[in-house]
Amino acid sequence: MKSDVILLGHGSGGKLSHELLDELIVPTLSGIGQRDQNDAAVLAAQDGRLAFTTDSYVVDPIFFPGGNIGDLAIHGTVNDLAMAGARPIAISVGLIIEEGLAVSDLRAILESMRAAARQAGVAIVTGDTKVVPRGKADKLFINTSGIGVIEHDLQICGSNAQVGDKVLINGTIGDHGMAVLACREGLELQSSIVTDSAPLNSLVKAIVEKLGSQLHTLRDPTRGGVATTLKEIAMQSQVEITLQESALPIDPAVGGACAILGLDPLFVANEGKLLAFVAPDAAELALAIMHSHAYGRQAAIIGEVTATGAGKVRLQTAIGGVRAIEMLAGEQLPRIC
Amino acid sequence: MKSDVILLGHGSGGKLSHELLDELIVPTLSGIGQRDQNDAAVLAAQDGRLAFTTDSYVVDPIFFPGGNIGDLAIHGTVNDLAMAGARPIAISVGLIIEEGLAVSDLRAILESMRAAARQAGVAIVTGDTKVVPRGKADKLFINTSGIGVIEHDLQICGSNAQVGDKVLINGTIGDHGMAVLACREGLELQSSIVTDSAPLNSLVKAIVEKLGSQLHTLRDPTRGGVATTLKEIAMQSQVEITLQESALPIDPAVGGACAILGLDPLFVANEGKLLAFVAPDAAELALAIMHSHAYGRQAAIIGEVTATGAGKVRLQTAIGGVRAIEMLAGEQLPRIC
Repeated sequence: MKSDVILLGHGSGGKLSHELLDELIVPTLSGIGQRDQNDAAVLAAQDGRLAFTTDSYVVDPIFFPGGNIGDLAIHGTVNDLAMAGARPIAISVGLIIEEGLAVSDLRAILESMRAAARQAGVAIVTGDTKVVPRGKADKLFINTSGIGVIEHDLQICGSNAQVGDKVLINGTIGDHGMAVLACREGLELQSSIVTDSAPLNSLVKAIVEKLGSQLHTLRDPTRGGVATTLKEIAMQSQVEITLQESALPIDPAVGGACAILGLDPLFVANEGKLLAFVAPDAAELALAIMHSHAYGRQAAIIGEVTATGAGKVRLQTAIGGVRAIEMLAGEQLPRIC
Repeated sequence: MKSDVILLGHGSGGKLSHELLDELIVPTLSGIGQRDQNDAAVLAAQDGRLAFTTDSYVVDPIFFPGGNIGDLAIHGTVNDLAMAGARPIAISVGLIIEEGLAVSDLRAILESMRAAARQAGVAIVTGDTKVVPRGKADKLFINTSGIGVIEHDLQICGSNAQVGDKVLINGTIGDHGMAVLACREGLELQSSIVTDSAPLNSLVKAIVEKLGSQLHTLRDPTRGGVATTLKEIAMQSQVEITLQESALPIDPAVGGACAILGLDPLFVANEGKLLAFVAPDAAELALAIMHSHAYGRQAAIIGEVTATGAGKVRLQTAIGGVRAIEMLAGEQLPRIC
């Protein structure tokens, strides 16, 4: 690259665009990217239903403890595919770059995307790069869209939660949101908080294979946190969910930071967590699968579906009360993903 | 919608996000969107190879003569799938909204997306909405990604242009770029220039069905224009392409505006045009198919592949000279798509 920073011309479609592609983007994503630059990538025919998802990432700052906007974007899309019970096969990468971004930052982010895609076993097959003038975007926005193949006949979806189901989570809550917030606000904490951003497809694969139709619903509690996600599922399935506050795994540093800032970890975003609704007979098996997986060591059963009803979520507090959980009303933590 | 403008909370994942989804986005895209809000859309199994593409749109202004950022985004992704010879089946929509965007503008844009998707016969199946604070984006950016099915065994790609091939275009060049530029700069022109933004999938379908393996390469000359796109194909196929300047269809208003501004229409973006490389015997048939289609009335044969070689494009000028065509060096027209 002749320039140390991204120029408007890198988004022109012309010579500078090709230099950016040929000298940075394609070589960095090499091995998992397609070298042949056509308007669309061509994939082999697939045997099974397809899952399709998209997410844009606007996190601020673009580097934070434990990750950056690049691996976050890969994990997020891998996880959205996994939550449909799909095996992720292909990802697209759309970059919107603010003029002036350091090429070294872009390289570091692309390298993280490569590593994240390799770890998840998914190919980055197509992409697009736009550059906007200074002040018209904020450093870098990334869209990742993804295709997965559903290699079974199960219906794993938000409307499939059933009375009696146990609700599991694969670890501590609120880590990602607090890691980004602490970094952005320059909070001085005794122990640093690190994002939980991680690809969950191999964990989901193990659960799907072992539980089969005893697995009813999967969803990753990202924006809005565990509370908002459970409320969505309660409404989609028309059930009442009861959570046990004392069962919620919370890292002490995250809990402490939340207390200082007056935030409820139930509403703070996660990027490496999933909520699983499973038949009661399968709950211990699901928990054991999670405990034996790198991304499930602190898994816990945190609640259950207690009744049919109009989409309520109740929290049984540690001191014996009951609190109704509603969706986040405003914007608690802007730009955490 | 309780607010007239988009608020940060509309991107929180919480209550306001659900209001935006339930009261504006899902109803507006209704009939072509999936109502069931899961992390990923689930599509039926498909018979054939898949095409997958992504594009982000950052055009400024977001409304321009003949279109807006919304229908442009649908057309662009439909066309990228069509250029692989695929039938578009599903599109994702990722919105990055600047806080303060008028809800009425967003509604108008979503309505254009619905109309464009309906016309192209493609479903909008999944989406994502982010909101960033004022000054951190410019009104609205849209990513559209798309999946298509390739229902034949042809290899239509940039590396398949062959010596002797005729090069066709389906109409006038430079319309989109000049329409956006004239609008943005407030140029006073005698006749208004309108974008050519259009879905080309039905035109491509007709060409593929009638020409079969006599169709070698398709590409839409968007950013960088006809010149840059032909240069890409010449390099991918390792051939020399010779263009006839006198054969290039140019709208007089576009030609006039280019002359005033010192721009070469060969480098100006199109959003409803395709370049087709076809075996010489099939050129007249391809031209007739284009002429009989609404998006090909002014189609022309504009050149041919004259030799194997190191990726050269030559322009035979109207006055008898020959000019070498290179890629756009810098940024001629920022943010035209």
